[in-house]
Amino acid sequence: MSKTIKKIGVLTSGGDSPGMNAAIRSVVRTCAFHNIECIGIYRGYQGMIEGDFKEMGPRSVNNIVNKGGTILKSARSKEFMSPEGRKKAHDNLVKAEIDAFVVIGGDGSFTGALVFNKEFDFPVIGIPGTIDNDIFGTSHTLGYDTALNTVVEVIDKIRDTASSHNRLFFVEVMGRDAGHIALNAGIGAGAEEILIPEEDLGLERLVESLEKSKLTGKSSSIVVVAEGDKTGKNVFELKEYVEEHMPEYDVRVSVLGHMQRGGSPSCFDRVLASRLGVKAVESLLENKTNFMVGLINDKVALTPLEQAIKGHCEVDKELLRVSDIMSI
Amino acid sequence: MSKTIKKIGVLTSGGDSPGMNAAIRSVVRTCAFHNIECIGIYRGYQGMIEGDFKEMGPRSVNNIVNKGGTILKSARSKEFMSPEGRKKAHDNLVKAEIDAFVVIGGDGSFTGALVFNKEFDFPVIGIPGTIDNDIFGTSHTLGYDTALNTVVEVIDKIRDTASSHNRLFFVEVMGRDAGHIALNAGIGAGAEEILIPEEDLGLERLVESLEKSKLTGKSSSIVVVAEGDKTGKNVFELKEYVEEHMPEYDVRVSVLGHMQRGGSPSCFDRVLASRLGVKAVESLLENKTNFMVGLINDKVALTPLEQAIKGHCEVDKELLRVSDIMSI
Amino acid sequence: MSKTIKKIGVLTSGGDSPGMNAAIRSVVRTCAFHNIECIGIYRGYQGMIEGDFKEMGPRSVNNIVNKGGTILKSARSKEFMSPEGRKKAHDNLVKAEIDAFVVIGGDGSFTGALVFNKEFDFPVIGIPGTIDNDIFGTSHTLGYDTALNTVVEVIDKIRDTASSHNRLFFVEVMGRDAGHIALNAGIGAGAEEILIPEEDLGLERLVESLEKSKLTGKSSSIVVVAEGDKTGKNVFELKEYVEEHMPEYDVRVSVLGHMQRGGSPSCFDRVLASRLGVKAVESLLENKTNFMVGLINDKVALTPLEQAIKGHCEVDKELLRVSDIMSI
Amino acid sequence: MSKTIKKIGVLTSGGDSPGMNAAIRSVVRTCAFHNIECIGIYRGYQGMIEGDFKEMGPRSVNNIVNKGGTILKSARSKEFMSPEGRKKAHDNLVKAEIDAFVVIGGDGSFTGALVFNKEFDFPVIGIPGTIDNDIFGTSHTLGYDTALNTVVEVIDKIRDTASSHNRLFFVEVMGRDAGHIALNAGIGAGAEEILIPEEDLGLERLVESLEKSKLTGKSSSIVVVAEGDKTGKNVFELKEYVEEHMPEYDVRVSVLGHMQRGGSPSCFDRVLASRLGVKAVESLLENKTNFMVGLINDKVALTPLEQAIKGHCEVDKELLRVSDIMSI
Repeated sequence: MSKTIKKIGVLTSGGDSPGMNAAIRSVVRTCAFHNIECIGIYRGYQGMIEGDFKEMGPRSVNNIVNKGGTILKSARSKEFMSPEGRKKAHDNLVKAEIDAFVVIGGDGSFTGALVFNKEFDFPVIGIPGTIDNDIFGTSHTLGYDTALNTVVEVIDKIRDTASSHNRLFFVEVMGRDAGHIALNAGIGAGAEEILIPEEDLGLERLVESLEKSKLTGKSSSIVVVAEGDKTGKNVFELKEYVEEHMPEYDVRVSVLGHMQRGGSPSCFDRVLASRLGVKAVESLLENKTNFMVGLINDKVALTPLEQAIKGHCEVDKELLRVSDIMSI
Repeated sequence: MSKTIKKIGVLTSGGDSPGMNAAIRSVVRTCAFHNIECIGIYRGYQGMIEGDFKEMGPRSVNNIVNKGGTILKSARSKEFMSPEGRKKAHDNLVKAEIDAFVVIGGDGSFTGALVFNKEFDFPVIGIPGTIDNDIFGTSHTLGYDTALNTVVEVIDKIRDTASSHNRLFFVEVMGRDAGHIALNAGIGAGAEEILIPEEDLGLERLVESLEKSKLTGKSSSIVVVAEGDKTGKNVFELKEYVEEHMPEYDVRVSVLGHMQRGGSPSCFDRVLASRLGVKAVESLLENKTNFMVGLINDKVALTPLEQAIKGHCEVDKELLRVSDIMSI
Repeated sequence: MSKTIKKIGVLTSGGDSPGMNAAIRSVVRTCAFHNIECIGIYRGYQGMIEGDFKEMGPRSVNNIVNKGGTILKSARSKEFMSPEGRKKAHDNLVKAEIDAFVVIGGDGSFTGALVFNKEFDFPVIGIPGTIDNDIFGTSHTLGYDTALNTVVEVIDKIRDTASSHNRLFFVEVMGRDAGHIALNAGIGAGAEEILIPEEDLGLERLVESLEKSKLTGKSSSIVVVAEGDKTGKNVFELKEYVEEHMPEYDVRVSVLGHMQRGGSPSCFDRVLASRLGVKAVESLLENKTNFMVGLINDKVALTPLEQAIKGHCEVDKELLRVSDIMSI
Repeated sequence: MSKTIKKIGVLTSGGDSPGMNAAIRSVVRTCAFHNIECIGIYRGYQGMIEGDFKEMGPRSVNNIVNKGGTILKSARSKEFMSPEGRKKAHDNLVKAEIDAFVVIGGDGSFTGALVFNKEFDFPVIGIPGTIDNDIFGTSHTLGYDTALNTVVEVIDKIRDTASSHNRLFFVEVMGRDAGHIALNAGIGAGAEEILIPEEDLGLERLVESLEKSKLTGKSSSIVVVAEGDKTGKNVFELKEYVEEHMPEYDVRVSVLGHMQRGGSPSCFDRVLASRLGVKAVESLLENKTNFMVGLINDKVALTPLEQAIKGHCEVDKELLRVSDIMSI
């Protein structure tokens, strides 16, 4: 059962996020620090199936702590969802004498790791890498803080032109299932309203609120909308609705899209990645498996992967109240 | 004819652009320097019609040199297109004892100024403020350099995620009639192809070129597309076309939109704004009228408004060749 | 004792930090939300002594959430250290019918508030605003996160030139008594060594470590040094020491200085400021006094000012180990 | 004489500057485009002497267009100043069958190239890469535009804290012999005074001007000082002088230093680098030698290296007047 770990694989899987490279660097260097070999697995589980491996030493990860994206590339692998695919992957790991792996990714990637562990009793640890911050067992996922800064910087720019023209802007940000980005970036960017998946503000209240905004002397407004907001309307439909009900408004739309996934990670994300990478490797060396490393109350902590997958990182409803007060 | 100018109005008109505030500051302070009064006219020609004026001294423009947008607000005014509207505007200027005005804006704003001058023999000078760089008589319009930096920074972020996933991205940038932004930001961001209004690459050549890109070992590609690109297809249609012809590609779209108009101006735009504002005011004081101040061969120079409106600032076709070579 | 609060003053005091404006905005708008009057007190306690007050409504704080510095200005006041000075300040508050105040600042500002409260039984609440993060009772002070990002961005630039020339750089960052900035920004920027006030690495170990760095194939090195680092040597003396012991090195120095205090706040700091401002005002309305509002385990929480002043926010020693591993 | 060029070397030499990587990329890809081999020469002339060469193809320069520094490293070589050193270098070039080289650097690097050409009749072309913009034959050197943006962004941050505390700041920027950075960044950052090597303002006038600033209601001031400013005093001495003559002022100093050389290049520098690289290679292919490629009146143009070295790119004195007017 508790065999000695001598070689660790590392991969990034699913959507990429800023800080993944810093986490790879941390895993690689922590292995070197403990005299463990480290193997980079390219293109997520797909590369595991295809044996796309490369040995990595401390100098392989020079000058990547500040780079967006992932040098190991990422992918979603359908083949890994089948027992045959996973069998191939396991064969490759065995052939390469890899004893355990660290997967950096989100819910889907963790589910894959867990299934893999059950089938082959193979040690795995997860590092939460996604900008959506929707993973249970960590207050912050890798890339979330960077994405927030990217979003507020862009909305700051949009506000320049909005307030020069007395316009209303609907700005769509990422978040299909979770309003973390919308809520926090919305408060940070001084949005008048924030629409999230967790709470239905109601379209009438939106119009009321915008009308109140105008009465209180605001000349322009920004409404931040999460992709999966609960009104069920996307930003283009929201624009139409508001134009119909407030014809005096000049309404515009901006969909921020993929730029939110890129960029040089913030200091917070770089430090978090470094800490999580250390803990991930050292947990494997202590023969722990099926855990996610995360940040709880500012400390690095382990959460069983099973819980991390089932749970949900709730938005802080108090922030909705803060947003309301701020937009008076 | 050549009466003494004692009070100058300043307004921003049309779409806003970074550097407009720096230009306002320059006009205001140059007036103060020459002991001339300066009046801010709010919301472009519409504010002129409504008499929305405010006296401005050198301290009114503190701390705006680095701010995007325009503190004078901007608007498009239908009323100013009618003789009645312009009559009202003129009455207001006369009542406020304004002897001349500086308008910061684009082609449309200059046309308005020229008509106004013809009708009332009122001295006017234009400063080219638009991110599109499509104005004859200046190598650079205010805001263009800033917009280029904004675009390349965003595409740098998109490239992070594109190259992590081996994806093809179509990125739409501003430019309905002119490819300046697409061409320069495309080269700056290392785009594989650039589609502009001035040149029809042809969709087949686009597909060929992307296929060649793949063969030469590129794992991801960015295609920069101006709004008014000559293929006649927008980015969503281009995506469809390519997906049909290159089913192996994972194609994504990003429309940069209004963020391109905002943001703190680059050093270049701040210096340009300062220089043009000085020249605009001093030209009026020398009883010059109906000119645009611009940058020609790195020197501030005057161009008759009539020429500025009729002419067109051509893209440098040599850049198309540079782009071709760079994307080898 | 528990009188009704109808008018609240707000001031910024001591060194400024990014997020102070967002906190002022939050205090002002939370007052408006609860139909309380709000008075801006300019230039910290000095302005309190001089009666430099101005009424503030929700529109007074438009467009400042993203601005560095403080619109209320800040100052250190010697006069406030004397009973006579505080008497004058109290007279002014009484005359202006101000019932309580919120002070945004650091240790010194809180001490002033506490003394003032003891003398006049005047309700006060503190918001921790300083980039140094050295205040007990909050995991993050306002401006700290922004300063970290500023520092890593600058060191990223320095690394470009360091690695182009195989150079060693000593970079001095703020932190006279606390190594938070040095330690976190050092890890974030991939520093080879980090010197902080809390731990004496020893100069010999520094040289050893740099020599090891060279042996492992690193061609350039960054050493991040807190102002008050425990070796007792400043960056210029460190440069001399290393040049003497490692003559083959081309050593350079960079002192980051005041730029660390400025800049547009990060999203984190903007949200934190908004949350703390709400809590500060609502705590006063609940007749609480002599507390600091802070962030503990990601939740807003109160700490008695007395504890906040006496205590110290320790650096996480685990980070020293992470830094060691990362620089292998 | 006019032999066929089949293999071109490229090196970066002297101080690095943003855009050098984009220029390397352009040289490498233009060679590939014309089916010419390209060899990277590491560490400038020193690497030429040591034969530190590496073949480069179009994929060797992927993802560097936006990176600061130089992947070829740079160095200053004393050995190359001797005939023996240059002999070794030439032997290495001959052995590697390199027919010509492109050197990216400043005056000193061009002088080396010219001497080398005279001795060995070896074809050379220079690309001006330095942030100082002090090279004759080009309106812009590579990296200059980026450095200007870096400087104004930092001074924007310093101004936040300066204006929060009513302080006077002396900010030292690069420029030992040329005031381009100080003058342009000073205007861009809204400096009250700018001290440059080309013009002696006089210390008394400085004090007068600062006093006038105060009288006109400015609460804080920034003075931008080039390293080689003509007063002969450095920023620390200037601080002392002003403190003596204006004891009411709280004076601070900031030396920006090496960060000015780093950072991701601006769009302008990336496009300029791309254009100059194409022209450099194609000029060699046309059997031109001893030229520098530069930008004159917005067009790429050749200037004999001899002139480029002897001449000087003058600051535009008109900007001094603009600066005076802006700081009213």
